[in-house]
Amino acid sequence: MDFPSPKGFEYSVTKAGIKYRDRYDLALIYSKKPAQIAGVFTTNQIKAAPVKLCMRRIKGGIAHAVIANSGNANACTGKKGIEDADEITYKLAERLGIKKELVFPISTGVIGMPMPMERIIPSIEDLVKDLGKAEPLQVAQAIMTTDTFPKITSKQIEAGDRVITMLGLCKGAGMISPNMATMLSVILTDARIEGQLLKDALRIAIADSFNAITVDGDMSTNDTVLLLANAEAGNPKIERKSNLWKPFRDMLHETCLELAKMIVQDGEGATKFITINVTGAKTGSDAKRIARTVANSPLVKTAFYGEDPNWGRIIAAVGYSGVPIKEEKIEIYINGICLFEKGLPTMLEESLKESLKQKEIEILIKLNLGKSQAKIFTTDLSEEYIRINSAYRT
Amino acid sequence: MDFPSPKGFEYSVTKAGIKYRDRYDLALIYSKKPAQIAGVFTTNQIKAAPVKLCMRRIKGGIAHAVIANSGNANACTGKKGIEDADEITYKLAERLGIKKELVFPISTGVIGMPMPMERIIPSIEDLVKDLGKAEPLQVAQAIMTTDTFPKITSKQIEAGDRVITMLGLCKGAGMISPNMATMLSVILTDARIEGQLLKDALRIAIADSFNAITVDGDMSTNDTVLLLANAEAGNPKIERKSNLWKPFRDMLHETCLELAKMIVQDGEGATKFITINVTGAKTGSDAKRIARTVANSPLVKTAFYGEDPNWGRIIAAVGYSGVPIKEEKIEIYINGICLFEKGLPTMLEESLKESLKQKEIEILIKLNLGKSQAKIFTTDLSEEYIRINSAYRT
Repeated sequence: MDFPSPKGFEYSVTKAGIKYRDRYDLALIYSKKPAQIAGVFTTNQIKAAPVKLCMRRIKGGIAHAVIANSGNANACTGKKGIEDADEITYKLAERLGIKKELVFPISTGVIGMPMPMERIIPSIEDLVKDLGKAEPLQVAQAIMTTDTFPKITSKQIEAGDRVITMLGLCKGAGMISPNMATMLSVILTDARIEGQLLKDALRIAIADSFNAITVDGDMSTNDTVLLLANAEAGNPKIERKSNLWKPFRDMLHETCLELAKMIVQDGEGATKFITINVTGAKTGSDAKRIARTVANSPLVKTAFYGEDPNWGRIIAAVGYSGVPIKEEKIEIYINGICLFEKGLPTMLEESLKESLKQKEIEILIKLNLGKSQAKIFTTDLSEEYIRINSAYRT
Repeated sequence: MDFPSPKGFEYSVTKAGIKYRDRYDLALIYSKKPAQIAGVFTTNQIKAAPVKLCMRRIKGGIAHAVIANSGNANACTGKKGIEDADEITYKLAERLGIKKELVFPISTGVIGMPMPMERIIPSIEDLVKDLGKAEPLQVAQAIMTTDTFPKITSKQIEAGDRVITMLGLCKGAGMISPNMATMLSVILTDARIEGQLLKDALRIAIADSFNAITVDGDMSTNDTVLLLANAEAGNPKIERKSNLWKPFRDMLHETCLELAKMIVQDGEGATKFITINVTGAKTGSDAKRIARTVANSPLVKTAFYGEDPNWGRIIAAVGYSGVPIKEEKIEIYINGICLFEKGLPTMLEESLKESLKQKEIEILIKLNLGKSQAKIFTTDLSEEYIRINSAYRT
């Protein structure tokens, strides 16, 4: 597959040997012209050093480059961790002839290990030397950890006689339970757009994409989404009244949603892609809380791994979510079949046997209390998740 | 092992064939004299029919009998479920010549299946006929579901020339995350005690026993603890000023703690018994919230299954618990070895290699923010948990 790159961005990757030998683990994304930048970050109070640095630098609103590494999260590494992240961006900026404040570092990997600076610093030279030689796909590959496939998508919209391109990359497979943020993701566009609109568009787009997925309920210390717009498409500037504002928002939303779904598809050990739709809630946050509680229930997840339409575990999770509900009003559907209504089981489990063998599972929970709803995407829980995570570090 | 029974209680068990043939699945506990009763129940809003019935009847404060079954939870069974539970107690009361309001039904097993009344009702005759023929251990066996061993303990204290005996039974191995309640547990004593004190003692005892354990974070619809005291020991009535008040509370607390720990030891697929101690919190509820968040993190649980001292996953869970913390003040110890302090890793993981092979793991998280603490008991998460729960129903 081909993923068109937005104009004015260049890429390079290298093998720094951060954790493993002989794999790409360090990548550079460079915008020839300074770009507008918007970002969202983990709400985990324990934030990795590069997250802290990005949060500080993003206040300036301008980015020139993103440097990304896998193999080491640079989290829980104290003052030295911040200094390391800063030095990496300083060395890179020096070689590129730009300011270090315009370089955004993102990291993923093991928590609590110092960055192997003796291997990273010399590799920066290679990144700069090879700039323009890598494809976006290779950047997506370089930031993989337990991911089994690179996550990338590309879209275009027309703007008069110009074309606006958007490229989205991300990584993530475990420790997935973003809240106002996600795993590492970089979205690049050549659109010309007002700075505040770029931020608004990102905030809207992540709400029901990156913030609507969960694999294991564990929120990372490194979650970051960066959105860069470098205006190289030459379109008339997108403002709140522009005809392009909605198509741009839609393109960004679709990009985020596709990437978020890829993360769930690649959920560690997952054999099912489960959509949980909660309707009829009094508020959107009630609906989301119930959907998340069901999505993170180990008993619900293991039931679907076993292809067992065990709605009893679903309703039990609804009941302990903390949201007030009425048992006799709840309806529970799996793949379109109603299994519980009016306080009673329908005894229709048998008719689900075949459809539970599919990879895609749809759970619909109607609360019948109000008009709000929420949708969450998640995975089942398999022995493979245990194997991956009991052996990840050692 | 021998488990002395309190005076004046009799037991019987029978094979009703509720879910499986040829195993004890229905049990009767009978107090010859009406007993004082105290109880705590699941805070899950979805409550099983027998829980609803018990909650209504316990207001009277008096119990004559407890009837317990495994194989069917009688949950999400609507009005019919309540009628079934009521009819079971009515038939039993009739045969025993007592009021049905003094019979307390407790159930455990699959959610959302009607009770097989055609098999249960005839079995009541056997229960009554065989009363006095069973030992407490057989009652504990009759309420097992995925439990691998029966959970029972017995204790005695002296009261002048009399002896007060307390017997505790419980079941539970999965869907364990009690909150103001636990899985099924019945505690019997022949103590003579004031009704209000019995309730107070139970409330105090469960706080750091049944309410301090979690296996999978899934809260059951059927959690129930019943405490019966029939005064048959002939001790002077225990009142708030009695010398016996403290020994009685201690005995009850130890009973609950032993039973709660047995549930964790028998946690589905568990290979480790993990104690999580959070100290230096601003409030007790802060400490408990952090301890529970760490205890329920699949990444923490799988790391310990893999015998990996992955404190990074512990601190990440502390960070997303929702409790305000200071990264640079946190200290994390595993089995007495400090792995993180002053914002930095100590790099002492190697020295833990041997001790992580033991079954018992001690995690100590010092927040250094205040004087409150909490302790939670939990398990690791293994492939076996997945196997048990993906195949439980089908």
